[in-house]
Amino acid sequence: MTMGILRFNFRSEILGMSTNITICYPTGSLTTGLGFRHPGFSDDWKQPYELGMKFQTVYLLHGGGEDDTVPYRYTRLEQYAEENMVMLVSPSVNDSFYMNTKYGIKYFDYLTQELPQVVKSLFASAPRRENTFIVGMAMGGSGALGLGLMKPDLYEAVVDLSGGIGVTLDREEYIRSLHWHFPRVRHTLLGESDFVGSEHDLRWFAEKNMSDGVDVPKIFIGVGEKDFIRDRVREDYEILKKLGYNLVYEEARNMKHDFDMWDVYLKKALSKWLPLKRKPIYET
Amino acid sequence: MTMGILRFNFRSEILGMSTNITICYPTGSLTTGLGFRHPGFSDDWKQPYELGMKFQTVYLLHGGGEDDTVPYRYTRLEQYAEENMVMLVSPSVNDSFYMNTKYGIKYFDYLTQELPQVVKSLFASAPRRENTFIVGMAMGGSGALGLGLMKPDLYEAVVDLSGGIGVTLDREEYIRSLHWHFPRVRHTLLGESDFVGSEHDLRWFAEKNMSDGVDVPKIFIGVGEKDFIRDRVREDYEILKKLGYNLVYEEARNMKHDFDMWDVYLKKALSKWLPLKRKPIYET
Amino acid sequence: MTMGILRFNFRSEILGMSTNITICYPTGSLTTGLGFRHPGFSDDWKQPYELGMKFQTVYLLHGGGEDDTVPYRYTRLEQYAEENMVMLVSPSVNDSFYMNTKYGIKYFDYLTQELPQVVKSLFASAPRRENTFIVGMAMGGSGALGLGLMKPDLYEAVVDLSGGIGVTLDREEYIRSLHWHFPRVRHTLLGESDFVGSEHDLRWFAEKNMSDGVDVPKIFIGVGEKDFIRDRVREDYEILKKLGYNLVYEEARNMKHDFDMWDVYLKKALSKWLPLKRKPIYET
Amino acid sequence: MTMGILRFNFRSEILGMSTNITICYPTGSLTTGLGFRHPGFSDDWKQPYELGMKFQTVYLLHGGGEDDTVPYRYTRLEQYAEENMVMLVSPSVNDSFYMNTKYGIKYFDYLTQELPQVVKSLFASAPRRENTFIVGMAMGGSGALGLGLMKPDLYEAVVDLSGGIGVTLDREEYIRSLHWHFPRVRHTLLGESDFVGSEHDLRWFAEKNMSDGVDVPKIFIGVGEKDFIRDRVREDYEILKKLGYNLVYEEARNMKHDFDMWDVYLKKALSKWLPLKRKPIYET
Repeated sequence: MTMGILRFNFRSEILGMSTNITICYPTGSLTTGLGFRHPGFSDDWKQPYELGMKFQTVYLLHGGGEDDTVPYRYTRLEQYAEENMVMLVSPSVNDSFYMNTKYGIKYFDYLTQELPQVVKSLFASAPRRENTFIVGMAMGGSGALGLGLMKPDLYEAVVDLSGGIGVTLDREEYIRSLHWHFPRVRHTLLGESDFVGSEHDLRWFAEKNMSDGVDVPKIFIGVGEKDFIRDRVREDYEILKKLGYNLVYEEARNMKHDFDMWDVYLKKALSKWLPLKRKPIYET
Repeated sequence: MTMGILRFNFRSEILGMSTNITICYPTGSLTTGLGFRHPGFSDDWKQPYELGMKFQTVYLLHGGGEDDTVPYRYTRLEQYAEENMVMLVSPSVNDSFYMNTKYGIKYFDYLTQELPQVVKSLFASAPRRENTFIVGMAMGGSGALGLGLMKPDLYEAVVDLSGGIGVTLDREEYIRSLHWHFPRVRHTLLGESDFVGSEHDLRWFAEKNMSDGVDVPKIFIGVGEKDFIRDRVREDYEILKKLGYNLVYEEARNMKHDFDMWDVYLKKALSKWLPLKRKPIYET
Repeated sequence: MTMGILRFNFRSEILGMSTNITICYPTGSLTTGLGFRHPGFSDDWKQPYELGMKFQTVYLLHGGGEDDTVPYRYTRLEQYAEENMVMLVSPSVNDSFYMNTKYGIKYFDYLTQELPQVVKSLFASAPRRENTFIVGMAMGGSGALGLGLMKPDLYEAVVDLSGGIGVTLDREEYIRSLHWHFPRVRHTLLGESDFVGSEHDLRWFAEKNMSDGVDVPKIFIGVGEKDFIRDRVREDYEILKKLGYNLVYEEARNMKHDFDMWDVYLKKALSKWLPLKRKPIYET
Repeated sequence: MTMGILRFNFRSEILGMSTNITICYPTGSLTTGLGFRHPGFSDDWKQPYELGMKFQTVYLLHGGGEDDTVPYRYTRLEQYAEENMVMLVSPSVNDSFYMNTKYGIKYFDYLTQELPQVVKSLFASAPRRENTFIVGMAMGGSGALGLGLMKPDLYEAVVDLSGGIGVTLDREEYIRSLHWHFPRVRHTLLGESDFVGSEHDLRWFAEKNMSDGVDVPKIFIGVGEKDFIRDRVREDYEILKKLGYNLVYEEARNMKHDFDMWDVYLKKALSKWLPLKRKPIYET
């Protein structure tokens, strides 16, 4: 009754390097019908393994300083995925803020062009946008928001949990973050002279989506009431609302910027927020 | 230019337990067309990643005392698979000789019923028999021969390298092995009073295939000239030949029962012996 | 601020096979003093990495049908270990009930003789009994209780969570379990005719400890009030109490036999029950 | 008779990120004396597992575009380490050329300050310089040479196989490499205006070692006769010789820049070149 989990190590062409991806399948809800059957329990609710089956797919983005393995070890995420019959795909992005870095390693292109192509070719991931979701926490939260706004055609819905580190809709705040004591932002993302209108300027994409009448993903934002980054996350929400986005925003009472918050909200994201079908997908 | 490799951990229903599978994809020969292109080198020989692509699949069986990881660490197997555009699937069988054990853990059923169903449902493994091969070394060699003779409808071809530990076509030798100082055989497989005609009696299956006119897999057997198990392997070959099987047998000059032999013969198996298509498969 | 985790694959001499062990180190609480220092946060509470440092060690035993990876994925165990500065060691036991099996694979000997020797030789595990603990859930719960009673010299304290599958102090219940619809117990453990006084007879060991005046480990037993196995676990507790053991027993209100219970009680075990030092150990 | 292998995932303080390390122990040459003893074979040559035992340690550096796992999968390295009773430690460096990058991620500091401290604290790695070696191939070859010349107090000996990508002793060649079609060098290492005398100027370190009379590591350089990078590697050798270094240089007849070369020369490095003790170390 446990998920199937794997760590895939392959060489990305865009990154030009070997990289790791953690992938989970909801195998605890699948059955071959071949094993031991307990006389007192029914497996009837399980779905059969079948040639051609696919799964709705949540791209699950780790936080800063972490990698593809950490969310699986620090929350009970696999169980939430199992209960909602989705597969999870977690890339590892080396503190790049999920963007194309100034120093030439193109994580954004990898995530939005190569990764989906590889995953859909080699794994049972349902291909359409309606089956594709993106969820992240901390650095992964703003990453999920960024990817959803910059590539709205890829994702049906976005969940940003405690985001705010990295790209943001608030340009003044972005400039400030280039001067943080923590130098990774300014080493990775474009500086004040060249970021407006650039590939790191989330505001530009957010406005363009609205002015172009783009069908944007559903957006859900959650942040702890006591999170040090709360105001920045809330500001992202306020700006999106003003721009005309239809979105859900929730402050988690008494919660902070930690895995206690994310464990609760990953469950909420998968069980409540995301419009999941909760069954295998057979269309192609 | 390296293979993609993963270790999948999932709960087998037939085994009733979490188990590990190592899977390799020939991703070094695949391209998204998105990465850095060297002006002096061409990638034209690479195949594109494509939705619906599948790979011919070699089930690669580890030896006694080993597990799914060892062949990949002790030979250069990934490179041979890469060069021949096949995917590899290695289960881990806990010294069961790839059979249903007397003590109730059914590895044979797992390998021949559940594993292919799971692999074909979740991974890009081409489904037909013509795309399915089985190769093993040492305990995995007799395992491959056993599975190929007991389930001839599953495999297009079989490679037995240095087999002979576990099931064998020589019933007298089998009885002797029950009395080996090494007790695992008699703890796992059926004893003299009940093995003839049983699911551990490889001779019975080999004869039945011939008398029933079954379309049997192509069989290739290799063993080191200096391998302590050579005579038992040769005897398996002799018996199959007498029964009317059409097969290749080769003794590797001066070689023993070790990874020097297996490294050379895994390359030969994938590059010469197996009738591989060496391209992705798009039929279903 | 995350634990260091690894999966060690090596060949056990007693098992005669490659096997996996998951090991965690509390590296999130260790510091080299070399990294980025946030001006607003202090790392002073962290312990320095030092040559010769060792950690108190909790052997953490998985449940039936699971393996060494599952507890780390299904609970937030790493965080509880981190907070209590212990290392965790989880073997993988192939549904053996942590005992020497009837079919000759000696998991008990592996766990109590080989595993500690290997772990103390290759990893920074503090060697003395006072630094060694054993905790398990479900099949791992009765495993922990069994190992603690059969090898009281090895463990300072034992935590049995929702045990009861496998060895038990209640001989009548043990006999009944041999006839369960689930056949693994009778295939693995000794039958009614030969189990009394055998290496599978936990009662025999429990009584002998008392009659010999052995210094037994502290024992903590927790089980869900609504767990289907509750009565068997409670009976183990009652028998131990009658025999004169000094132990803690707790029924978790409204809880069942699942990871909701184990997530709560692993935290309690590490943070409250076990008499941990919560610092690196420098004695040898 | 197989090595023990593990992949350790922990958060580096200097990198500020989770990172992976592959570590191998020569457990196939160690014994507890507890397992099955074959009457016809002796284990007397094996060394006992013992509290306090340590191993000579080879830091093994992967090539460009690769990671800590690739050398173990693409060569038979584990067997060569086993035969020579050393442990192997492979970090993963994200195409940084093993240097502190211009963009602020300090791989050189990680490798020379943090990694040894962590490895010696948590694993059985013998601490002294006389027990510490560094070996690399391709990008890892020049990395090994660079680390050896820049931190001569850390390594007893250095093996550079087919190095030349990244740091080099030839300043003109270095400048040229900043203009290669492949942009990673100029994005990562310092440019023409600021590299002379900088932490990326290997020539500066090489000269200083000689003028200061530093006790430098033994240096072994191997490169394929047909390797496209041969002249650059040979030039590194020529410069070192002229500077007064005592070193071994070998061109592998007919060999190229690939794993055929590295498989042969990793064996040679471990079995012939490095002055190994080939036994456990008990001094501290």
